[in-house]
Amino acid sequence: MVYQDPKLLLFALNSNLPLAEKISEATGVPLGHVSSRQFSDGEIQVNIEESVRGHDIYIIQSTSFPVNDHLWELLIMIDACKRASANTVNVVMPYFGYARADRTAKPHEPITAKLVANMLVKAGIDRILTLDLHTVQVQGFFDVPADNLFTVPIFADYYREKGLLGDEVVVVAPKNSGIKRARSLAEYLEAPIAIVDYQEEKERDANSGYLIGDVAGKKAILIDDILTEGITFGNAAIVLSRYGVGDIFACASHGLFLPGSKERLEAAHIKEILVTDSVKSDNDKPESVKFLTTAPLIADAIVRIHEGRPVSPLFNYDKAQG
Amino acid sequence: MVYQDPKLLLFALNSNLPLAEKISEATGVPLGHVSSRQFSDGEIQVNIEESVRGHDIYIIQSTSFPVNDHLWELLIMIDACKRASANTVNVVMPYFGYARADRTAKPHEPITAKLVANMLVKAGIDRILTLDLHTVQVQGFFDVPADNLFTVPIFADYYREKGLLGDEVVVVAPKNSGIKRARSLAEYLEAPIAIVDYQEEKERDANSGYLIGDVAGKKAILIDDILTEGITFGNAAIVLSRYGVGDIFACASHGLFLPGSKERLEAAHIKEILVTDSVKSDNDKPESVKFLTTAPLIADAIVRIHEGRPVSPLFNYDKAQG
Amino acid sequence: MVYQDPKLLLFALNSNLPLAEKISEATGVPLGHVSSRQFSDGEIQVNIEESVRGHDIYIIQSTSFPVNDHLWELLIMIDACKRASANTVNVVMPYFGYARADRTAKPHEPITAKLVANMLVKAGIDRILTLDLHTVQVQGFFDVPADNLFTVPIFADYYREKGLLGDEVVVVAPKNSGIKRARSLAEYLEAPIAIVDYQEEKERDANSGYLIGDVAGKKAILIDDILTEGITFGNAAIVLSRYGVGDIFACASHGLFLPGSKERLEAAHIKEILVTDSVKSDNDKPESVKFLTTAPLIADAIVRIHEGRPVSPLFNYDKAQG
Amino acid sequence: MVYQDPKLLLFALNSNLPLAEKISEATGVPLGHVSSRQFSDGEIQVNIEESVRGHDIYIIQSTSFPVNDHLWELLIMIDACKRASANTVNVVMPYFGYARADRTAKPHEPITAKLVANMLVKAGIDRILTLDLHTVQVQGFFDVPADNLFTVPIFADYYREKGLLGDEVVVVAPKNSGIKRARSLAEYLEAPIAIVDYQEEKERDANSGYLIGDVAGKKAILIDDILTEGITFGNAAIVLSRYGVGDIFACASHGLFLPGSKERLEAAHIKEILVTDSVKSDNDKPESVKFLTTAPLIADAIVRIHEGRPVSPLFNYDKAQG
Amino acid sequence: MVYQDPKLLLFALNSNLPLAEKISEATGVPLGHVSSRQFSDGEIQVNIEESVRGHDIYIIQSTSFPVNDHLWELLIMIDACKRASANTVNVVMPYFGYARADRTAKPHEPITAKLVANMLVKAGIDRILTLDLHTVQVQGFFDVPADNLFTVPIFADYYREKGLLGDEVVVVAPKNSGIKRARSLAEYLEAPIAIVDYQEEKERDANSGYLIGDVAGKKAILIDDILTEGITFGNAAIVLSRYGVGDIFACASHGLFLPGSKERLEAAHIKEILVTDSVKSDNDKPESVKFLTTAPLIADAIVRIHEGRPVSPLFNYDKAQG
Amino acid sequence: MVYQDPKLLLFALNSNLPLAEKISEATGVPLGHVSSRQFSDGEIQVNIEESVRGHDIYIIQSTSFPVNDHLWELLIMIDACKRASANTVNVVMPYFGYARADRTAKPHEPITAKLVANMLVKAGIDRILTLDLHTVQVQGFFDVPADNLFTVPIFADYYREKGLLGDEVVVVAPKNSGIKRARSLAEYLEAPIAIVDYQEEKERDANSGYLIGDVAGKKAILIDDILTEGITFGNAAIVLSRYGVGDIFACASHGLFLPGSKERLEAAHIKEILVTDSVKSDNDKPESVKFLTTAPLIADAIVRIHEGRPVSPLFNYDKAQG
Repeated sequence: MVYQDPKLLLFALNSNLPLAEKISEATGVPLGHVSSRQFSDGEIQVNIEESVRGHDIYIIQSTSFPVNDHLWELLIMIDACKRASANTVNVVMPYFGYARADRTAKPHEPITAKLVANMLVKAGIDRILTLDLHTVQVQGFFDVPADNLFTVPIFADYYREKGLLGDEVVVVAPKNSGIKRARSLAEYLEAPIAIVDYQEEKERDANSGYLIGDVAGKKAILIDDILTEGITFGNAAIVLSRYGVGDIFACASHGLFLPGSKERLEAAHIKEILVTDSVKSDNDKPESVKFLTTAPLIADAIVRIHEGRPVSPLFNYDKAQG
Repeated sequence: MVYQDPKLLLFALNSNLPLAEKISEATGVPLGHVSSRQFSDGEIQVNIEESVRGHDIYIIQSTSFPVNDHLWELLIMIDACKRASANTVNVVMPYFGYARADRTAKPHEPITAKLVANMLVKAGIDRILTLDLHTVQVQGFFDVPADNLFTVPIFADYYREKGLLGDEVVVVAPKNSGIKRARSLAEYLEAPIAIVDYQEEKERDANSGYLIGDVAGKKAILIDDILTEGITFGNAAIVLSRYGVGDIFACASHGLFLPGSKERLEAAHIKEILVTDSVKSDNDKPESVKFLTTAPLIADAIVRIHEGRPVSPLFNYDKAQG
Repeated sequence: MVYQDPKLLLFALNSNLPLAEKISEATGVPLGHVSSRQFSDGEIQVNIEESVRGHDIYIIQSTSFPVNDHLWELLIMIDACKRASANTVNVVMPYFGYARADRTAKPHEPITAKLVANMLVKAGIDRILTLDLHTVQVQGFFDVPADNLFTVPIFADYYREKGLLGDEVVVVAPKNSGIKRARSLAEYLEAPIAIVDYQEEKERDANSGYLIGDVAGKKAILIDDILTEGITFGNAAIVLSRYGVGDIFACASHGLFLPGSKERLEAAHIKEILVTDSVKSDNDKPESVKFLTTAPLIADAIVRIHEGRPVSPLFNYDKAQG
Repeated sequence: MVYQDPKLLLFALNSNLPLAEKISEATGVPLGHVSSRQFSDGEIQVNIEESVRGHDIYIIQSTSFPVNDHLWELLIMIDACKRASANTVNVVMPYFGYARADRTAKPHEPITAKLVANMLVKAGIDRILTLDLHTVQVQGFFDVPADNLFTVPIFADYYREKGLLGDEVVVVAPKNSGIKRARSLAEYLEAPIAIVDYQEEKERDANSGYLIGDVAGKKAILIDDILTEGITFGNAAIVLSRYGVGDIFACASHGLFLPGSKERLEAAHIKEILVTDSVKSDNDKPESVKFLTTAPLIADAIVRIHEGRPVSPLFNYDKAQG
Repeated sequence: MVYQDPKLLLFALNSNLPLAEKISEATGVPLGHVSSRQFSDGEIQVNIEESVRGHDIYIIQSTSFPVNDHLWELLIMIDACKRASANTVNVVMPYFGYARADRTAKPHEPITAKLVANMLVKAGIDRILTLDLHTVQVQGFFDVPADNLFTVPIFADYYREKGLLGDEVVVVAPKNSGIKRARSLAEYLEAPIAIVDYQEEKERDANSGYLIGDVAGKKAILIDDILTEGITFGNAAIVLSRYGVGDIFACASHGLFLPGSKERLEAAHIKEILVTDSVKSDNDKPESVKFLTTAPLIADAIVRIHEGRPVSPLFNYDKAQG
Repeated sequence: MVYQDPKLLLFALNSNLPLAEKISEATGVPLGHVSSRQFSDGEIQVNIEESVRGHDIYIIQSTSFPVNDHLWELLIMIDACKRASANTVNVVMPYFGYARADRTAKPHEPITAKLVANMLVKAGIDRILTLDLHTVQVQGFFDVPADNLFTVPIFADYYREKGLLGDEVVVVAPKNSGIKRARSLAEYLEAPIAIVDYQEEKERDANSGYLIGDVAGKKAILIDDILTEGITFGNAAIVLSRYGVGDIFACASHGLFLPGSKERLEAAHIKEILVTDSVKSDNDKPESVKFLTTAPLIADAIVRIHEGRPVSPLFNYDKAQG
């Protein structure tokens, strides 16, 4: 399939080429020609190898590891597009690095997520499309349109197809701040919820963890937004085991799989870990990982945005946001 | 006591004169002369009746009911100060109206809290000082310094003095999104916590409420940030009663006491409701209300800011923020 | 009639629905679906109930009483449109509140009309369409296009049709700052002018008023831009009577009819008072009031703007502006 | 006298060096060293020949003929000061060129006075000090502090000393838009006012001029803000003569004396024409011209601004502004 | 030929009407109706005499002598276009005045080229099209798209046609900073290069000049970007003569021909001096001057920009930029 | 020595701690407490461990390898300082990464040096202090004060002390774009200059290199701004050898010493290579490298800036800039 409007150009930078290729296929828009090289002094040089004059540009870039390089590669590409007279520059950022730095938790702290938003807007973006932001308030850090797609419906579809729904299942928030996501998935699966909490907020330790709710004999589905070192899921699985749970499943929107996570997650006896393809990571991953693609969802959003049709039908998840 | 640096001017607008007078007394800085009138077509006219040229201005204004009038009165005052060559314009906003509109919960929604921040910055503020913002991410809506003071230590001091602490007490979050505040107060009181949750997130109904945690025979302290119509506290108290709780106490940072709240709260048999003096409301209030003043805390912050001394010692509460 | 370009969306907020409906009818563009509610704490919630993505939005809102609520309702709607990816946001403001606060008349005064302009631009408007601004310099307060339509031709047509023209008529400025409008109407009616002036600029009192020019035996038409409390017209009519005038007529672009104006105007024996429908007011009005609609004029301007055709043919009045 | 605070630096550009030297003398602040040359291709080169780092700079420049050169000389000086780390850059502009282009009088017109304001602010000014702006609304074109000094008290002092006051005198507005200035001077002189008006607004011709008010046997003082070609005063004097006036005096804040004005004014038999020294013009001037200096007024304002003392005591005139 | 898209409007201001007319002819777009007058006080009044609403405007203006008038005429025109709702405002500036003021060469100097860029952007331009900028870094002074066309291919075509190429020719940089342009032309002509250098950088004097490279018996082509007073070419020709050169030719992109240049250049025995028509100058010019038109190049660029086709094919020259 | 004004705080980030420590020692201002960590997902967390409220902050950071990490570390630190109410934030950037990306050399290229400037200004800097920028026009990329210190006097002092001056020495530009630096050093050393040039601009190859000027029997000093891979110096030394030069010396402001440079430079038989300490690099360096410190120069500039004393006495080098 080839998309008909030649004004729409799709470019992929270096963070997640496989996802970009899937989005390209799903939209029918071939990836534009751009070369981006990093020299031995660390400087990045971006060359757009076709005319963007008067076009609507969509740049696909997750700001995962190495986040600072990926951010500068993106900023430089935005600058090149604006100077080359692109009509609009739209950023598609499936994974938004620094999203957790969204407040001054301690005195004299920066708010790096706001800084990232300010840098992108100053560089010249017209719009951003994100996927399951850590905190929805980050949308307000932008004064350009910011559409945030949700992943819970993707996970829900998968589990429903697999028959994981109803009273035999319990959706579990692996820490107290994750109640909203758990409740949202639970509504899709018509299942109850439970929460793993800890005595000490700052030092979550499996021994001090305890369960709120009832999981005995049920299949548990843990849900979180970012899987970094595997500690949250690992500890929660240990706590769940103490309460006589059945099989443990887990899902997270963004799988960073930082070093150590493979060992930790494999030790936790989680039967299957779902993540989306928002992040491309070369790190070792546990055997039980399964990737669900977000390409059709993102492709649909891009085409809707370009054609001025509503994106809201894609926001199923937000019905359940508090 | 009279404060020595004549560069510091304190002005009060019309939302909360009693609090402003207490702050004036606590700082030793007399309130500046300003008259602000509203004409019968609704327009507000602000006249500053002394020179502000070269001074550092602190304007005390809560944006409580009628929020739109109070916001315009504030914006107009800011404009007057900037045009009259004030050195800096600092807003002291103990209650931040529209703070709950901090994300696009549904498609096509505004983010009014960000809009308010943008309007204040564009009008010319150099800094804002707030008190227990509904969501801490709202600090990031500003690109000028935004200091957010906490009220939990004030409530904690009161309860400790009263002997309400330790295992005989349980701090209760009246809805699942309030866990952080409950945990913070609980740490000060060395008490356990519990949560009131509801079957239906969107329609919280006392009948569908249930308790997570153990309250039987204990004295419960409910905690929330904004007390509007009294429904949250009212329902939570009814749920608690079903679980055999002892005396019920409640505290909230900002007491709006909207119509109907008096009846609802009195019916709920809450022994004492603490609120701060961040909001001046002429509405009827339940008999059990007690006001704790934030004037010394705010006064201390103003003087520290003016003298370039750290405000961070006043942020005790954030130790406990997740 | 239905307008053909679906990119053009027309929305009405709460200040003047009847005018918006007439504009909708005159353009053939149905009013878009938006709900705007005010809660008991005064906060306004705006929900746009259809997709605005990629559309050109025209928001009809007069900022008449209660001006602060109407301004915030407008700002919030603008924010919602921008975040929902509207292509352009155009404000149609038949009555511009705070327009008289256009200079620092006294030391330390704000310039609230400029503040309003800054707030609208910062919120994200692309253009504003106004009707007979109090001072034409206010256009320069905006750095986005600001088109200002005139009402004098509407009044002139009415009076000509009624036979009120030529030497039997005299157009009277009810205070010295109103000479320009009087002269403009007089040119349309081929009539002479006169001026009512006062000994004391600040306290205009009918006893101290005197007439410049000749009115004896003529029909007088008083003209002003904003009719607030009826004092200006009331006093001028009394002065005119002393000079042996015949029937007195009056016209004003914007009829606020603040409390007391009905009594004052009825006592002044003005035969007919014309105002446009720029303001919807629930206040009591004198029996002699007649409304002329500006809907066809505004509708014509909206369509011309949307289609990129010149609006200048609608600016007949400005020929006569000094 | 030498002013004590070395942070205050005063610079004069090329438009009005004599006035700058008087201001320097009146403040006790010597003029800073700056050289400004214009090359044969018209480009201006400004060299500041001393350090401005950390200083508060006051640049004295009237934007009289050649206005475009004087504006660029000023903008370039501002740029040089900002880049050389001046603490603040304050512009003292006794005559504000392009001030009459303050609205779109005809379709597709620029608002050049706003453009000038935008250019100055973008170049980096922190404040502007003007003298009797053509329209007070121009203050609102700036979002930095704009203080506007008045000249009427200077003229009033002169006339009072000369005995020109009371009922033997009449203050005359030479066209209908000048009523405010006439009334203000009249209040100082305790004299009545009169107005010269014309049949045709656009083509003011002495034959079609007529008088409103009573001047017979009185000494008339004509007042205007800008004296350009002398037509306004010339025609008004002719009209006045027809009404049996006694001696005619005239005063204007800014004397441009464009070519032809000398002949025109001398033919009009005006006994004395007062202007301030806001404009330095090499054009021929009528014999009857007398210059009153504004240097002490401006010097007082500069020192008050620098020391953070109120400038408002210098705004006597605005008491009388409508 | 008439260009088909009525959205494209071409306007010429007063600096170079002949070039604008040629561009109009080459594009098939008639020049729009605008009148621009300068009054005797130096103020410029611009009246656009047709509707620009919704159109893409291209304004042709070189900022040659008198540069400050031409800049203000341009800024005022931009302001008029924005306020009259032009869709985009594009500036075509074949000669960019103040381009040499691109750095702080001495302490406390302005960077006037950056100031000019800031003023144009603040006034509202969407894009600028220049011709052979003095320094290519000036493009970076703009944050809107800035396309810079090159003149070397035009000169090269002329010389090739004339048979001036190969080893019998030498391209000479008349000062050490001009090596890049010389090398670029030499590549087109397949000729060697040479450099004229001076003992004293600041005072270039023919006696102290010496040659680097070999010119004996060859035809020399001197190349520079701006021909001002003819000193650079004049001295270089004298130096070349000392080294036994054959005929001397010269070319420069922008011919200002300031007073004195005619005599200087004629004394230097340069056989033919090529300049483009980027600057219209009424000054005397040497007999040997020949103008090459840039109208087809600029016309091609305007149409490509308007149609969203790449401008890069026109950038042949930059292959050779270092 | 301890500097007396406690308002001045000096912070070092991670790029060049040794230089920061020397600057601290030279100023007498101890380095402030800040911890900056990078997590395994690449995100950087900066914690300022003391109050910066009301202070003037100087942040020392070279943006050398890894440039993107060092830039984000700097931007995050700036954000933290602004939010923590620093009075001013001043960046001291001895090496400015991406400085060579200062123009669009090919179509569709970004201007990354301008992008970096825009990001720093948007993040909130008040001033930047650099050392020998690659192109002086980059100063104009900033609209905040940008002071650029020069290194040539440092090299000149060293060589003079060593007796390397006069006619026995020749200063050599290793490529044609480096003539300005060579000339400047030559003036200090009272020595002649020479240039190494290449047949092919784009592919500089020692075989195609040739010499302009006379070096036989002299000691040559090569000079450049950035030493990256050693190719420029390496090739130039080979060319020089062919022309019978004596000892070869070399100096460069910024020594990156990218992989391969050690071998290349050692093979080139350069007797001594001087670089400043602007860059800290862990790469292997040739044995002949000697570091000259810029700490006293930078320290002097910081103190002068803080105290509002002129920095211009430190700009000796610019006398010689063309």
